[in-house]
Amino acid sequence: KIDGDRLWDSIMEMARIGPGVAGGNNRQTLTDDDAEGRRLFQGWCEEAGMSMGVDRMGNMFMRHEGTEPDLDPVYIGSHLDTQPTGGKYDGVLGVLSGLEVIRSIRDMEISTRRPIVVVNWTNEEGTRFAPAMLASGVFAGMHDEDYANSREDAEGKRFGDELDRIGWRGDEAPGERKIHAMFEYHIEQGPILEAENTQIGVVTHGQGLWWLQVTLTGKDAHTGSTPMKMRVNAGLGMARIVEAVHRIAMDHQPNAVGAVGQANVYPNSRNVIPGRAVFTIDFRSPDLDKLTSMRTRLEAEAAEIADDLGLGIEIEPVGHFDPVTFDPKLAGMLRDAADRLGYSHMDIVSGAGHDACWINKLAPTVMIMCPCVDGLSHNEAEEISPEWASAGADVLLHAVLEAAEI
Amino acid sequence: KIDGDRLWDSIMEMARIGPGVAGGNNRQTLTDDDAEGRRLFQGWCEEAGMSMGVDRMGNMFMRHEGTEPDLDPVYIGSHLDTQPTGGKYDGVLGVLSGLEVIRSIRDMEISTRRPIVVVNWTNEEGTRFAPAMLASGVFAGMHDEDYANSREDAEGKRFGDELDRIGWRGDEAPGERKIHAMFEYHIEQGPILEAENTQIGVVTHGQGLWWLQVTLTGKDAHTGSTPMKMRVNAGLGMARIVEAVHRIAMDHQPNAVGAVGQANVYPNSRNVIPGRAVFTIDFRSPDLDKLTSMRTRLEAEAAEIADDLGLGIEIEPVGHFDPVTFDPKLAGMLRDAADRLGYSHMDIVSGAGHDACWINKLAPTVMIMCPCVDGLSHNEAEEISPEWASAGADVLLHAVLEAAEI
Ligand SMILES: NC(=O)NCCC(=O)O
Ligand SMILES: NC(=O)NCCC(=O)O
Repeated sequence: KIDGDRLWDSIMEMARIGPGVAGGNNRQTLTDDDAEGRRLFQGWCEEAGMSMGVDRMGNMFMRHEGTEPDLDPVYIGSHLDTQPTGGKYDGVLGVLSGLEVIRSIRDMEISTRRPIVVVNWTNEEGTRFAPAMLASGVFAGMHDEDYANSREDAEGKRFGDELDRIGWRGDEAPGERKIHAMFEYHIEQGPILEAENTQIGVVTHGQGLWWLQVTLTGKDAHTGSTPMKMRVNAGLGMARIVEAVHRIAMDHQPNAVGAVGQANVYPNSRNVIPGRAVFTIDFRSPDLDKLTSMRTRLEAEAAEIADDLGLGIEIEPVGHFDPVTFDPKLAGMLRDAADRLGYSHMDIVSGAGHDACWINKLAPTVMIMCPCVDGLSHNEAEEISPEWASAGADVLLHAVLEAAEI
Repeated sequence: KIDGDRLWDSIMEMARIGPGVAGGNNRQTLTDDDAEGRRLFQGWCEEAGMSMGVDRMGNMFMRHEGTEPDLDPVYIGSHLDTQPTGGKYDGVLGVLSGLEVIRSIRDMEISTRRPIVVVNWTNEEGTRFAPAMLASGVFAGMHDEDYANSREDAEGKRFGDELDRIGWRGDEAPGERKIHAMFEYHIEQGPILEAENTQIGVVTHGQGLWWLQVTLTGKDAHTGSTPMKMRVNAGLGMARIVEAVHRIAMDHQPNAVGAVGQANVYPNSRNVIPGRAVFTIDFRSPDLDKLTSMRTRLEAEAAEIADDLGLGIEIEPVGHFDPVTFDPKLAGMLRDAADRLGYSHMDIVSGAGHDACWINKLAPTVMIMCPCVDGLSHNEAEEISPEWASAGADVLLHAVLEAAEI
């Protein structure tokens, strides 16, 4: 078993960097706080005898040597970046559990044939720079580097410039490393494990996703003196499309979700009819047909809504992945480990996107999840218990040792 | 007649301060640009022999002496502040036409028994600090000074602090001046005069208004892994209320309008269901019963929408005035002047709120309007012709001379 107290202490120490306003974290990707969090993680890894590689996307690869250094390594990876009002656990649990696995292996003087590499993937959250899982996506060959470097945040700052600014661009070509297998450990971010009173989720599938950024163009005009008939109200168009997104998701139940998380009207003045609205739709389903159908229907309905109101409309996809099937053999290792350790487990589908979804394209990959209170995530009030955290890390340890050939 | 070229040149020179991004202006109240615009206006007035008084709300009173200085003055007032993406004319036309009236009187060596005071009222627009017409409202005793000083902009900066910062707080107690009559000249900001091919609008009435700021409270949660049933989506609640505002306004046709100009969701992240939404509703009508009915119905419907979605709701009125009836005698002077000058005119209702609406509570007040292209205002593309501008200023000159007792 890993050292649960040490794991928890490390999570709490990381949470001091980029504190939120309500007990969680705001340590968004490529901020100064992100850089500080990376340095803390690097220091811990080096104390544990690991060596660092960094690629041109800022992905950090912390290597623990195997007895046969030429074998492809086993990877344990997740992300240290957070939402603007995010929780302390989210991806941090997975990265620091990877570190804890190495610390425990060293304590127990266990050696493995294959090297083990603990990874911090850059910009998993996708809040500051869409799409999510940007740097693991580049690593997996899903995006090219120029695309990633040119992504802009809300202030127009570019991913590439910000990566240079915080000093975390490395030399490695993204994707040049060989991967024998990857494990990602993450909090569930949903309510199922807690409701089923189950300690371990073995993630067999991941939902697919479409992020559609919609821009509506109407006409700024005075809210008081413009007759109702003369209005070209982009805010009203946005409201109707937000409602359509909800209705379309409800029509695709079960196993489909849809919402608008980011929404802005311009000029955003109390007495100006919005002449422009920009917002992002998030549709997800583990079922590819449903995912495609939601997007198709939305595009048709949104075009009709815009047409009715005389609005111009542009819809740009800013994030996409198909539903994912993780590696059954690695999933079996997780189930065996949980059984061996006496932890309850069940198979689940990930509602969120994860770096593992991209790495799965390159190499056998699987995820393990622990419950989270009320299924709440992307909220500063996100909570897990130390026991939940360490049970998952124990399972991770056993499965990784099997994969890395003890 | 006034000097139309000089008036136009002054408007264009003022427009150089706080330029917009698309040919209009962003010279919001109590910004550095506002301070610069005030200094330019002050300089012009002093060149025209006027003396300045400034009250504790930053209202600027530029006085041209009468032959009987103890008589209550006639006022000509509007505002130099603009929307964030506003036009060059809006309130500027009224203030600079006041100046042009004085310049012309001096050129013609006309004297009046009563002094004439040209006023720039602070924070008419209400975008940066709600409510609109804040400082004329304090002058008219509708708000107290503490209320005004404590109003906050989107960044949490206070009106009073910003007024001090730009150095335009004066010594006069707001409202201590006596007013014999006030004229406000403004662009129509609506389509009627242009459609009717009429040069002069004599404003007999103004619409009443309610600004209602709504805060919806739900729960930040992950857009992917939170089942539809567990969502408490403040953004969806906002969308439904935006639609309700539109429907309620349509149900009160004719002579009623409604829209949401300012709308924000939090944390405004692509993959977070909004846990909070804050937005402002703007309802207007010249008919008090309709105005009241729209507010009442909205409050009931919004409460139901919030209840359906499990959202907390707070509705705070952040702006209000009843429909206004302007002074019939002053309106008669405007009609007579237009007839004398051979300009076409018609009676109209102001769709927008104006400082004149508040001053009307204290003293006989009237407004005069000129057409604007396509009725477009609160838009950088706002446009009027030099001929329209000077025709209105000619009428203003004649009516003011009559009121000031030539
Ligand atoms: N796990 C997670 O929240 N990732 C961010 C991408 C997504 O929204 O699914
Ligand atoms: N005239 C004008 O646009 N005033 C601002 C207040 C309002 O929205 O009516």
